[in-house]
Amino acid sequence: LTAADDIVSLADIERAAVGLQDLAVRTPLLSNPVLDEMLGGRILLKVETLQRTGSFKFRGAWNRMLLIPQARRANGVVAVSAGNHALGVAAAGRLLGIPATIVIPIDAPRIKIDEARRLGADVRLYDRNTEDRESIANEIADGRGATLVPPYDDRAVIAGQGTVGLEMAQDARQLGAAFDDVLVCCGGGGLAAGVSTAMQAWSAVTKVWSVEPEDCDDTRQSLLAGHRVPPRGNQRSICDVLVTPQPGELTFTVNQRRLAGGLAVTDEEVRSALQFAVRTLRLVVEPGGCAALAALLSGKIESKGRTVGVVLTGGNIAPDRLIELLSTPKPL
Amino acid sequence: LTAADDIVSLADIERAAVGLQDLAVRTPLLSNPVLDEMLGGRILLKVETLQRTGSFKFRGAWNRMLLIPQARRANGVVAVSAGNHALGVAAAGRLLGIPATIVIPIDAPRIKIDEARRLGADVRLYDRNTEDRESIANEIADGRGATLVPPYDDRAVIAGQGTVGLEMAQDARQLGAAFDDVLVCCGGGGLAAGVSTAMQAWSAVTKVWSVEPEDCDDTRQSLLAGHRVPPRGNQRSICDVLVTPQPGELTFTVNQRRLAGGLAVTDEEVRSALQFAVRTLRLVVEPGGCAALAALLSGKIESKGRTVGVVLTGGNIAPDRLIELLSTPKPL
Repeated sequence: LTAADDIVSLADIERAAVGLQDLAVRTPLLSNPVLDEMLGGRILLKVETLQRTGSFKFRGAWNRMLLIPQARRANGVVAVSAGNHALGVAAAGRLLGIPATIVIPIDAPRIKIDEARRLGADVRLYDRNTEDRESIANEIADGRGATLVPPYDDRAVIAGQGTVGLEMAQDARQLGAAFDDVLVCCGGGGLAAGVSTAMQAWSAVTKVWSVEPEDCDDTRQSLLAGHRVPPRGNQRSICDVLVTPQPGELTFTVNQRRLAGGLAVTDEEVRSALQFAVRTLRLVVEPGGCAALAALLSGKIESKGRTVGVVLTGGNIAPDRLIELLSTPKPL
Repeated sequence: LTAADDIVSLADIERAAVGLQDLAVRTPLLSNPVLDEMLGGRILLKVETLQRTGSFKFRGAWNRMLLIPQARRANGVVAVSAGNHALGVAAAGRLLGIPATIVIPIDAPRIKIDEARRLGADVRLYDRNTEDRESIANEIADGRGATLVPPYDDRAVIAGQGTVGLEMAQDARQLGAAFDDVLVCCGGGGLAAGVSTAMQAWSAVTKVWSVEPEDCDDTRQSLLAGHRVPPRGNQRSICDVLVTPQPGELTFTVNQRRLAGGLAVTDEEVRSALQFAVRTLRLVVEPGGCAALAALLSGKIESKGRTVGVVLTGGNIAPDRLIELLSTPKPL
């Protein structure tokens, strides 16, 4: 067994899938004839925007929170998140009857704060410039005996996100398709680690690639360096959910072993992919949810004559922001 | 056999499904946890916005055009349409190598005219006020020996649209669900006739309802009158694709026998459903494509404790128009 296998295995992901049955939406693996014709390949879109809470994050949160012993559940959970992980934890908390406290920066997209509250979470806003989110979270956890639910650097979280890859592999086989490549949006790397583990267990020749914003390409840079390094750029991007300071320890160990490589896209490529998603795919995707699609559309890998899987990871975008991004002439 | 069975049967629809295999997208039958919780029922959305050409219309057009004898195919086809039927015929024509001419009003949504051209159709624009579309189409058909492809009042077209209902029935069974009600957007009634025929063959207790804009409720009025009558209202609606002068002869014969009744929605209810689709379902739907969803959300039928199928029929909407409809304060 390699270290990567010790962290997460196909069996872990299969167990997570059993726990998610009837709770997670079985999201479609979708073809679009215009896209296929445009690229001359067979593109299969895993549409996690249609998932419970509008992103794949529910899968990992649920799988992690199932592990909390009954006796500790009443003490609640705490999560630090500016985005979709918050909603995943809030939704899982409500379904499991576990009180959830979410530590969210005050400048997070309003729609996510409101939605976390609608799902019954207790929201603790903080100021990125003056407060340290980790100490706020630890204080809450220590005070109440609450369990911290990490966004990505956790075996159960990685296994939960891996169910995305398991479903893709199953559905592709049903369609008689075999993936040459799979593109996955990447923040801390939990989804990439889970998907690549499931995918390679089913099909060793499939290449799985992480996709990050150019200025937050910590996983790409770390893969090139052979160890964890911070991103090259200034960590600014319209893909708010993909901005992370460096890869997770566990996720990077898995990704270093499993990924074919790291790709990066510009904000302009992301916006153009978002417009394509709305206009041609008729799907609402948030900027960070279409980084992988942006990599495909801007030709970061060869798709002609190939079968390519693309995960559309999230669709939590306020109508106003959507309108802004659809209005072409306006600069980013 | 009743007259309705003579027009279209489950066997006709099953044959259409075989012909559409690998050409039509197998669109998902989707759940959304927020929607289910909001209404207290189990709602299954048939997402035909994800169909080839962005609406269910490809199904009927393809099934009709398959019947054209090889010797006549080179003469081409002609269709009269302001919308999605045009795209269905254009796409089927390209796949079958049949030249397609589409007679489109000059005030049709630009996106549909452009897309018909992109699909290789010859577009003949006409002025609704000064020209008669039927005589233009007949002239083209007579001159070239081209085949007219009617938008709804045709057995093969109805059978093609019926594959939507067949897939819904199959997928619901797979999910262990049984529909109490199914809501279908209705223009000329081809989709309603096809879906109700398939649905009732699988589940006789399921009630299928047509949904129309209030001022274009010709099917509802005709069902009440017991014979075909024009709509009550002024035939104006934001649901451009659902504006029809009266039900088809064949479609009404089927719908009179099969439908539980006709429902109608206001433009305001449609706009609100479209906003819900974008914000909560993360799906782009055109106004006429969410009339059935509007009926559900505005409580035209009881959904609490029931299993309700809703067809989202089309998603061909220009980004500018989408922005307009998402901008709440602006009047319709």
